[in-house]
Amino acid sequence: MSRHVVIADFERVGADVLKGLAEEGASTVHEADGRRGALRPELRAIQQGARIAGAAVTVSCHPGDNLMIHAAVETVRPGDVVVITTTSPCTDGMLGDLLATSLRAHGAIGVIMDAGVRDAAELQAMKFPVWTRAVSPQGTVKASPGSVNVPVVVCGQMINPGDAVIADDDGIVVIPRERAAAVLKAARKRTANEASKRERLAAGELGVDMYGLRPLLEKLGVEYR
Amino acid sequence: MSRHVVIADFERVGADVLKGLAEEGASTVHEADGRRGALRPELRAIQQGARIAGAAVTVSCHPGDNLMIHAAVETVRPGDVVVITTTSPCTDGMLGDLLATSLRAHGAIGVIMDAGVRDAAELQAMKFPVWTRAVSPQGTVKASPGSVNVPVVVCGQMINPGDAVIADDDGIVVIPRERAAAVLKAARKRTANEASKRERLAAGELGVDMYGLRPLLEKLGVEYR
Amino acid sequence: MSRHVVIADFERVGADVLKGLAEEGASTVHEADGRRGALRPELRAIQQGARIAGAAVTVSCHPGDNLMIHAAVETVRPGDVVVITTTSPCTDGMLGDLLATSLRAHGAIGVIMDAGVRDAAELQAMKFPVWTRAVSPQGTVKASPGSVNVPVVVCGQMINPGDAVIADDDGIVVIPRERAAAVLKAARKRTANEASKRERLAAGELGVDMYGLRPLLEKLGVEYR
Amino acid sequence: MSRHVVIADFERVGADVLKGLAEEGASTVHEADGRRGALRPELRAIQQGARIAGAAVTVSCHPGDNLMIHAAVETVRPGDVVVITTTSPCTDGMLGDLLATSLRAHGAIGVIMDAGVRDAAELQAMKFPVWTRAVSPQGTVKASPGSVNVPVVVCGQMINPGDAVIADDDGIVVIPRERAAAVLKAARKRTANEASKRERLAAGELGVDMYGLRPLLEKLGVEYR
Amino acid sequence: MSRHVVIADFERVGADVLKGLAEEGASTVHEADGRRGALRPELRAIQQGARIAGAAVTVSCHPGDNLMIHAAVETVRPGDVVVITTTSPCTDGMLGDLLATSLRAHGAIGVIMDAGVRDAAELQAMKFPVWTRAVSPQGTVKASPGSVNVPVVVCGQMINPGDAVIADDDGIVVIPRERAAAVLKAARKRTANEASKRERLAAGELGVDMYGLRPLLEKLGVEYR
Amino acid sequence: MSRHVVIADFERVGADVLKGLAEEGASTVHEADGRRGALRPELRAIQQGARIAGAAVTVSCHPGDNLMIHAAVETVRPGDVVVITTTSPCTDGMLGDLLATSLRAHGAIGVIMDAGVRDAAELQAMKFPVWTRAVSPQGTVKASPGSVNVPVVVCGQMINPGDAVIADDDGIVVIPRERAAAVLKAARKRTANEASKRERLAAGELGVDMYGLRPLLEKLGVEYR
Repeated sequence: MSRHVVIADFERVGADVLKGLAEEGASTVHEADGRRGALRPELRAIQQGARIAGAAVTVSCHPGDNLMIHAAVETVRPGDVVVITTTSPCTDGMLGDLLATSLRAHGAIGVIMDAGVRDAAELQAMKFPVWTRAVSPQGTVKASPGSVNVPVVVCGQMINPGDAVIADDDGIVVIPRERAAAVLKAARKRTANEASKRERLAAGELGVDMYGLRPLLEKLGVEYR
Repeated sequence: MSRHVVIADFERVGADVLKGLAEEGASTVHEADGRRGALRPELRAIQQGARIAGAAVTVSCHPGDNLMIHAAVETVRPGDVVVITTTSPCTDGMLGDLLATSLRAHGAIGVIMDAGVRDAAELQAMKFPVWTRAVSPQGTVKASPGSVNVPVVVCGQMINPGDAVIADDDGIVVIPRERAAAVLKAARKRTANEASKRERLAAGELGVDMYGLRPLLEKLGVEYR
Repeated sequence: MSRHVVIADFERVGADVLKGLAEEGASTVHEADGRRGALRPELRAIQQGARIAGAAVTVSCHPGDNLMIHAAVETVRPGDVVVITTTSPCTDGMLGDLLATSLRAHGAIGVIMDAGVRDAAELQAMKFPVWTRAVSPQGTVKASPGSVNVPVVVCGQMINPGDAVIADDDGIVVIPRERAAAVLKAARKRTANEASKRERLAAGELGVDMYGLRPLLEKLGVEYR
Repeated sequence: MSRHVVIADFERVGADVLKGLAEEGASTVHEADGRRGALRPELRAIQQGARIAGAAVTVSCHPGDNLMIHAAVETVRPGDVVVITTTSPCTDGMLGDLLATSLRAHGAIGVIMDAGVRDAAELQAMKFPVWTRAVSPQGTVKASPGSVNVPVVVCGQMINPGDAVIADDDGIVVIPRERAAAVLKAARKRTANEASKRERLAAGELGVDMYGLRPLLEKLGVEYR
Repeated sequence: MSRHVVIADFERVGADVLKGLAEEGASTVHEADGRRGALRPELRAIQQGARIAGAAVTVSCHPGDNLMIHAAVETVRPGDVVVITTTSPCTDGMLGDLLATSLRAHGAIGVIMDAGVRDAAELQAMKFPVWTRAVSPQGTVKASPGSVNVPVVVCGQMINPGDAVIADDDGIVVIPRERAAAVLKAARKRTANEASKRERLAAGELGVDMYGLRPLLEKLGVEYR
Repeated sequence: MSRHVVIADFERVGADVLKGLAEEGASTVHEADGRRGALRPELRAIQQGARIAGAAVTVSCHPGDNLMIHAAVETVRPGDVVVITTTSPCTDGMLGDLLATSLRAHGAIGVIMDAGVRDAAELQAMKFPVWTRAVSPQGTVKASPGSVNVPVVVCGQMINPGDAVIADDDGIVVIPRERAAAVLKAARKRTANEASKRERLAAGELGVDMYGLRPLLEKLGVEYR
C-alpha cells in the first residue's frame, strides 16, 4: 500500500449548510458545537473582513515543496476551501498568485495555509481570502511526494476532506461533515438568542445578574469589599 | 482572609490628567516618566489609530474562564480602561462583543487583554478599542474564581487599579496614579521641545551635531574611515 | 585596529538597477537569483502596499541604544535603505519620527529594523516605509559604540553596505551588489513569462500538465485513487 | 448526546508488539512507518535514557484544570501510556507525584503531557518517565469537564485510545493500533540493515557512494569545484 | 527625585522561615499561598537538584549591561537570593563565574536571572545555583544606569526586596515578606497531609473517590460509556 | 554559473590555534575578539561538558533534506567541525548516528546543527558532541540540491569554511580564520588576568571598587539611599 495518495473524490458537507455556517461565523459555530473545532490562533488572515465556509480539500506537503498543491487542483470543486499543511514546520511561500488563480479557476473560495504564502498584495487584489502562518518571499521546490485529501492536523485540530471549514477575522473552525447540519441549527438558535441579550447589556443590566452568576461567585468564596 | 476579592472602589487618576495623557500618547508619556512603564510589545491593537488614556480597572481570571470579567462590570466608571489578565498564559477568546457592550454601557473606553478576544470584526465596528495577545474563536467557561481591582502584572509591568493606562498604535504604557500629573507636565514640555528639533533635522542638520554626540563617539573609540 | 568603525563611503548598486528591482518586487527577485536572499519572515511592514529597492546603509547597534543610527545619518545618500540591527536580540523602539525625518532629509527611502520602532502612526503619516520586528514605546539610550556600513546579518542573511535591498508586502530580499544587474535581467524574463501562465491557469489548465509534473508524481510513487 | 465522555474500554495494541516497538525506539519506528507519526519536538523528557512503548489512554482537559486526569485513572491498564492534552495551550503543573503514584498503581508506565508537570525531582526519583511541554509549580483546579479516551491531537499528530505510543530521548511517535504489528516488522528489518551500513561508514566508505547519490547530485546541477 | 536608586537596606523575611520554605519546595509553597506567586516557567535551572529559599535582593539593568549587578553586591547579606531583570528582553550573558564569586563572597546563595548567564560549567562546578532565561557567551557592557532593591517584575510576578524567593527543579515562587511565616505554616500542614494520600493512591484507591469528585463529574454532564 | 556547489578545499585555521582556542572556551574567546562572534543562544548541546574548537566545514541544505550532508563528508579533514544549516527554518532530525559515524570516520570532532538531530542517546554514547536546535525523530529525504563549504549564516553569525568554531556549555562562537591567532593571544592574556580578580572578589573586594565604577554610577545619576 502506498504511503502517498491522491483521493479524487469524497463526500462533502452540503452547499446550503455551508452558506448558513458562513453567515454564523467561526466563533458562533464553535460555541454551537460545544466549544469544539477552533484552530489555535497561529494563522492570520492576510485580508480583513472575509468570512467563508467551504468543504475541505486537504493537502499534505513536504516542507519547502509545493508539488502536492499542484496535484490537488484537479480535486477541487466549486465552494471548496483548500487546507494545506507540511509534514514538519515551514514558513516558506508555498503558494502565490499563480497557484491561487489555478485553485480559483477550479472553484476554490479560499486557502488555509499552515506554512507561508507570497504575492500577498496580488492575493488581496484578487480578493482570494487566505489564512496563513507567514508571508514570505522564500520560494519552494517541486521534488517530494505527499498526499491529497487525507486527514490532516492543523493548529491542533484534525481536518478530514469534506469537513466544513469556517474562517473569518476571528480565526478558523472545523466541523466534521456529519455534524455540520446539526451545528448550523444550534448556531442559528444561539444567534437569535444574542440580540435580546445585547440590548439588555447595552441598557446597563449586569451579566452577573442576567446570567445568574452571583450565587456562583459566593460559593467560590469571592469576597466583595 | 479570602484570596479572591472584588474591590468595589478605589482612587482614580483624574479625568483632566487622563485627557492630557491621551493627547501625548504612549511613547512620549513613557519617555516623560524616565522611560518607565512600557509594557513589552506582545499585545497588539485590533484596530488602527486609537489613542486612549483611562484609569485602570483590573481583572485577574483563571485561564479559559471569563467569570471575573462579568464580576468586574459593576466596578467600571466612565473613562476607565479594563485591564484583564489570567493566572497562567492563555490565548482563548475571553471577551466578545456582548461583554464589550456591557463594559461600554458602564463607561469603559477600551480593553487591555493579556489573553484573547473574539468578535474582532464586531468590536471594530463598535469602535471599541482593544489591545490583545490573540484573536481566537475559542470560547471560555464561567467556573473558577479570581479577583477584581487588585494589582496585576501585564507584559512585565505592575498595574494597580486607578493607575493611568495610555494605549495607542505604539503600544501600552502604565503610569502610577500618584505620578500621573507630574508625568503629564513633563510630557507636554517634551512635546513642545520636539517641534523645533523636527524642523532642524528635516533641514538636514545632523543629530550627532544637534545632540552633541561627536565627543561621545570619539571617547567610545568609534573610528571614522 | 578599532572594533567600532563608521565607513563613510562604499560602492552602491546603481539607481537604474534599483528602479527595476523595485518594479519586480521581493518574491520575483528572490526567484530570479536562484531562490537566494530572502530574509526569514520575522520583520513586518508597518504599512501596506509599499515596494522599495535601495542600496543598503548598514548599522550595528548595542541593544537598547540607538547612538549609531545617529552616526549613520551622514553616510546616507539619496535612494538608500537603512538596515539596522543589534548585537543581541532587542525589541525596543530604536527609531521614531524624529530620526526618520533626519534619515529622509539625507535621502533614505525606508528602514529595515531588526529591533523595534515607535511613533508608528507618525511614520505611516509621513509615508516613510518601515519593516520592523516590533512596535514598542520602549525608549533607548545613547551610550554604547557600534558600527556603520560594516557587513551585518539580519534574519539569516548577510547584508553588505551597497547591496540591493528589495522590500514589499511579501517581505525583504537582499541581492549582492555585483549580482544585482544580472538578477534584474533574470527577474524581467521571469515576469514576462508569467502572464501567459496566469492566463492558462485562469482558463482551467492544470499545473500538473502545464509544468509536466505527472511523470514525477508517478515516479515518486504517489498513487491516485 | 453529551459532549464530555469517559470511555471505559477500547481495543489496545498487543503487549508483544509494544515490547518490540520499545526496543526499536521512536526514530526507527517512525522511519519504518514511512516517516509518519512523529510529534513535533516541543515536549521534552524530564529524565534521560527512558525508552517506553505503551497503549494510549487519552485525556482532554480544560486548561489549568486536571479533573479529567483523575477521572482517567480507573481506565488505565498495565502497560498503558497516559497522553494528556488541554483544549487550549497551557503550561501549568497539571500532574505531580501524587497523581503519578495513582496512575502507576493502575499500571501506567509513563505520561505524555501537552501542558506542564510539577514535582519533577520526585517523578525522576520514582523513575516514572514523563515527556512534557513545561515544568511549573503553577497548580490547577478541578472545576471543568473534559473527556477520557477520545481521539486527541498532540504536537500535530492525532492519537486514538489504544494506539501505540513510543517515547525516548529522541521524542515521541504514535502508530495507529491496526498498523503497529506491520510497522514493528518493518522496523526490525531496518535495524538489521543498519549494522552493516554503520560498519562500512565507520571504515570511511562515503554515503554518496554507498547510497548511490552521485548521479542524483549531478542531475540536480550540484557543481564540484 | 532620581529615577535610578540603590537601596542599601530593607527588611528581610526571617532566616528560620526561609529554612522552612526551602524544605517545602516551590510547588508546595505555591499551593499553600492559595496558588499564588509562581513565576511563568520560562527560566530554567542550569543545575539539577538545587532547592533554595532566600530573601530577594533585586536588580534592574539596562539590556546587555551588567553595571548594576556590580552595584548590588554590597547590599547582599548572607542567605540572600539575587533576582536580576532587564528593562527590556535580553538573553546576553550578564553574569559569569567572577561575578558569582563576588556575590557568594557577600553571602548570596543563588541567582534568578531574567536574562542570560555564561560560564555555566564553572557555575555548576562552584555549586552556585542559577535559574536563567538563557546561557550565552554574549558579553555585556557597563555603561547605563539602573536600580538596586526596587520592586521588579519577573515572569509575571512582582518581587519586592526582602520577599521570600523559593527555587528548585520545579521553578520559582515568590512569597511577600509579610505573608511568608503564615504560608510556611500552611505548607507544613499540606505536606503532613500528603503522606497518607500518597499511600492510599499507591494502594490503588481512586482520586475520584478519595477527593469525592464523582458528584462533580456527574453535575458537569460527563457521561460514562 | 551553478547556484549549488561543493567546494573541495579551502584554507583552514591552524591546528595549534584551534587547540588553544578550545582551552579558552567560547565566552573568553568571544570577549577576546571584542565581544564578537557569539551565535544567538538558540542551539543547545545534547551533552554536558564538551568543549571543542575546529575549522568549519559548512553545509547548506533544503529543509527536511540531508542530501548535502552526505556530499560534505568527503571534504571533512581531521579536526573539522561540521556546521549545518537549512535554507529555511527546520527542526527535522537531519543527522543520526550513522551519519555521525561517517563524519567522525573522516575526522570531524563535532557538529553545529541549525535544524534537528536524532539518535540523541547513541550520539551521546559515541561521545560525538552536537549542538542543535532540536532533537526530533522526524526523518528527512535526499531529493534537493544545496551547497558545501560556502559562507553560511547560523544564529545571526556568518561562518566561512575554515573559520574557527568554538563550542562548549556556554554556546558557540565563530572567529574568522585570519583573526584566530591574534584572538587566541588576547584570550590567553584575558585568562591570565582573571585569576587574580577572582581571588580579590572571593575575598570580598567589591567590583565597583576593583573596576573603578563608583564615579560612573555617580555621573549616571544613580542615587544611593
